[in-house]
Amino acid sequence: MASENSVEVIASGRYLRLMRWDNWEYAQRVDIGGIVGIVAVTDNDELVMVEQYRPAVGKRVIELPAGLVGDTSETKGEEFIQAAQRELLEETGYSASTMVPICEGPPSSGTTSEVISMFFAKGLEKVGEGGGDHSEDITVHVIPVADVPAWVERQRQNGLLIDLRIYTGLFFINCR
Amino acid sequence: MASENSVEVIASGRYLRLMRWDNWEYAQRVDIGGIVGIVAVTDNDELVMVEQYRPAVGKRVIELPAGLVGDTSETKGEEFIQAAQRELLEETGYSASTMVPICEGPPSSGTTSEVISMFFAKGLEKVGEGGGDHSEDITVHVIPVADVPAWVERQRQNGLLIDLRIYTGLFFINCR
Repeated sequence: MASENSVEVIASGRYLRLMRWDNWEYAQRVDIGGIVGIVAVTDNDELVMVEQYRPAVGKRVIELPAGLVGDTSETKGEEFIQAAQRELLEETGYSASTMVPICEGPPSSGTTSEVISMFFAKGLEKVGEGGGDHSEDITVHVIPVADVPAWVERQRQNGLLIDLRIYTGLFFINCR
Repeated sequence: MASENSVEVIASGRYLRLMRWDNWEYAQRVDIGGIVGIVAVTDNDELVMVEQYRPAVGKRVIELPAGLVGDTSETKGEEFIQAAQRELLEETGYSASTMVPICEGPPSSGTTSEVISMFFAKGLEKVGEGGGDHSEDITVHVIPVADVPAWVERQRQNGLLIDLRIYTGLFFINCR
């Protein structure tokens, strides 16, 4: 198994490092506390989703609200649940009266060291515009939960990509 | 939006490149045709999962069977559906009489260019040992679909990680 000193840094960017261990290569985020993703459902049973351009795939992507924990000097040391509240508000303009952990896991552990902590947000109140921080350009979509599978399929046919976590969110919504 | 010549290669490994576009960094797999993931359900309504050590997260991870399309000289140019059949057989020892596309999307488009094409496999027959190719050390788990959420939670408590695609698979199983 891996011992710390057998891991090699191939290259360091500003946000990501390219790492090697034995014959494996993977990407590692620099200096973050974690990653949160939020399944946010309104009192009218609508799922809150975000859409933004993702350079890595060269397309706009429909996703759950999500973000990095403690990645700036202002947020250093914040709790995961705080980060989930903050990211939901920044990206969508919604505050949540309850924010409950539902699962955590890697989205793609063959390629990145990321582990995402997923939360369920309820008691939503629209208190801001959303749209993300200064570096982001986010469109918010609020779609009845029952319509989401057909709605995302239409977006896909229109050339957008659908983050697989959307379906993870729908699974946990259906489990309520 | 991105034009090809504005994308910069920060570093190239054997399997991954670290890329930069504007102020964004991401990882890109070298020379593959795509990625497939397989939701494989037996005639006894059991989900077929794989467990393997993932250096990127430093732990064993419970995942759906998955793999790269056309990444070797033997598989160059293969169809996605062929790759799904091949990976299911290599990793789990099951052949499938039907293999149907269910969705495609990025698992983590803030970090990697990966887009995963998901298939639903039925008509399973155990025809081999599984365990992966020469570079892999895979344990196969065949668990009743209804028990999967509680089973993966027990694995998590035992120190394994649960790939978020497990829940994506459960969503599509519940939609049948």
